[in-house]
Amino acid sequence: MNIFKLASISLLASTLLLAENSLIDKAKTAGLQPIPADKAALMKLIDPNHTISEAKVALGKQLFFEPRLSKSSIISCNTCHNLGLGGVDGVPAAVGHHWTANPHHLNSPTVYNAVFFDKQFWDGRSPTLEDQAQGPMQANPEMAAPKALVEKRINSMPEYVKSFQNAYGKEVKINFETITATIGIFERTLVTPSRFDSFLNGDKEALNAAEKEGLSVFIDKGCTSCHKGIALGGTMQTFPAVGKYSYANVGDFKGDKNGKVKVPTLRNIVQTAPYFHNGAIWSLKEAVQEMGKTQLGIKISEADSDKIVTFLKALTGKKPEIGYPQLPTSTERTPKPDFK
Amino acid sequence: MNIFKLASISLLASTLLLAENSLIDKAKTAGLQPIPADKAALMKLIDPNHTISEAKVALGKQLFFEPRLSKSSIISCNTCHNLGLGGVDGVPAAVGHHWTANPHHLNSPTVYNAVFFDKQFWDGRSPTLEDQAQGPMQANPEMAAPKALVEKRINSMPEYVKSFQNAYGKEVKINFETITATIGIFERTLVTPSRFDSFLNGDKEALNAAEKEGLSVFIDKGCTSCHKGIALGGTMQTFPAVGKYSYANVGDFKGDKNGKVKVPTLRNIVQTAPYFHNGAIWSLKEAVQEMGKTQLGIKISEADSDKIVTFLKALTGKKPEIGYPQLPTSTERTPKPDFK
Repeated sequence: MNIFKLASISLLASTLLLAENSLIDKAKTAGLQPIPADKAALMKLIDPNHTISEAKVALGKQLFFEPRLSKSSIISCNTCHNLGLGGVDGVPAAVGHHWTANPHHLNSPTVYNAVFFDKQFWDGRSPTLEDQAQGPMQANPEMAAPKALVEKRINSMPEYVKSFQNAYGKEVKINFETITATIGIFERTLVTPSRFDSFLNGDKEALNAAEKEGLSVFIDKGCTSCHKGIALGGTMQTFPAVGKYSYANVGDFKGDKNGKVKVPTLRNIVQTAPYFHNGAIWSLKEAVQEMGKTQLGIKISEADSDKIVTFLKALTGKKPEIGYPQLPTSTERTPKPDFK
Repeated sequence: MNIFKLASISLLASTLLLAENSLIDKAKTAGLQPIPADKAALMKLIDPNHTISEAKVALGKQLFFEPRLSKSSIISCNTCHNLGLGGVDGVPAAVGHHWTANPHHLNSPTVYNAVFFDKQFWDGRSPTLEDQAQGPMQANPEMAAPKALVEKRINSMPEYVKSFQNAYGKEVKINFETITATIGIFERTLVTPSRFDSFLNGDKEALNAAEKEGLSVFIDKGCTSCHKGIALGGTMQTFPAVGKYSYANVGDFKGDKNGKVKVPTLRNIVQTAPYFHNGAIWSLKEAVQEMGKTQLGIKISEADSDKIVTFLKALTGKKPEIGYPQLPTSTERTPKPDFK
């Protein structure tokens, strides 16, 4: 190899290196952020109030998988937020108690990385995971369990009482609020770092050339105007009046009082079809094009949509290992399943 | 301590030892058998045809937790045979597709230790776990999935196809039979050794005095005439015509063509309320007394029922550790959830 060839390869390599450095800069400038690789930095983000402990997470995991928190005793948090299916149920509108679909035709959002959302629920009415967990448990078309029933069920099982005392101290009041908050604490740990994070954290080989190109197109098209931050979503954004857009023509959901809607995370997006608040679109490419049209006012070409989808696939993250929990044994004091 | 006292303690110890040896003999003579402590002996029992492999068990576990095997895509084997709840749903009659209760009012039997049953289903119509798994998946009030739908769903996901090829070889035909058989293979591993097994296997301290007394009463009252073998159940036994007994006054189930009914296992029995084929009785003590009355024609006193229940609690076994499986991602070819 002559010196000229060597120099030109070296120049090419430097250019690529520069390009990749500048893609990371470009992504960060556009508001994209990685899940921190550093454990202390991550804990600071997911546990700002220092509520996480091993005992609370283990108990929260049991409660997350606990069907006796529903009126019928056969629906758990995991029924609609299935941790084996990207944290969702994979159906357009959640189906709960009495086989009732969500009356507003709302799609179950993933619990993975939900800790990074500014707000919870599609209309952002809940500030935290701990608060959010109170909703579906009581909602009639979901778990349909009144607070008092939830409290009676859990307090009727000595194994649960012991676990709560172990997690919070002997004086703990095992009420609806502590039960749901413990589920929220478990959910804080459901974080799924991906190759995208490795890339933003400096590993330039973590994404391949096509994924890098897709990331660049994703930014250039303006997707990051809503899909930003660590979650690539999770903030409230203006969502034009329903009826005007094809994907909104299902259900009666209109967002919060300002018509704003929570932007769904794009992490693990290939696992969480169907898409949008109403689960109206199954194809990720179609969803990308629909968003271009309705939210950005542009036509995203076939080629560019494919490139963006290629990038989105790199957002599939590594799930935490979840040992399926053994649940406490019911006692004669445990309120019976109620199918009414 | 004088020599006389020492001698009398030694005599007492020998008597107890004799008593315990003879209780083990008595139990074995009555037809009770332990889960073998020896792994090779256990494998011979649970895997007579050498179908178990690590790859098949891992795949079978995914399929056991796979809601897309149901028509709706929200009901899995684990919905009614919850591995965190003793392998059952804890409701009187199984509730499935369209929130439909089992039309014969049949209670979901546990999958734990079902490998030790002679027959599967309450009417014993199935000879193996592999065969049994075909039933609930297709049954309308359960998972309601036609064979062709199940096959299309699984074959639409490359990750599943790869796992089947990995487990069975490149030429595998991924059809309804192989899918359900793989679930059966996973279920063969759901064995829960208990302190009772340690006792029968020779560890005389594994049961305490009250449990030993309970075991003795259990045998003396004749419970082992049906609840015998490794499963303490699992054989077909005469079951007098329904209507005559209070616990049978629910549903229209009449057993097999000879009126015989599969005896449920007593392993993990405190975790599997409500009891009987129709889930009509919630209290274990009441169930013991009812069985005395209707099956043995005797009145089992309060004290003796308590003793038997004390023994039954020692049948709660150690569950295998189950990592909650990550399931393959649906593709655009995957048939959509169907709630009709």
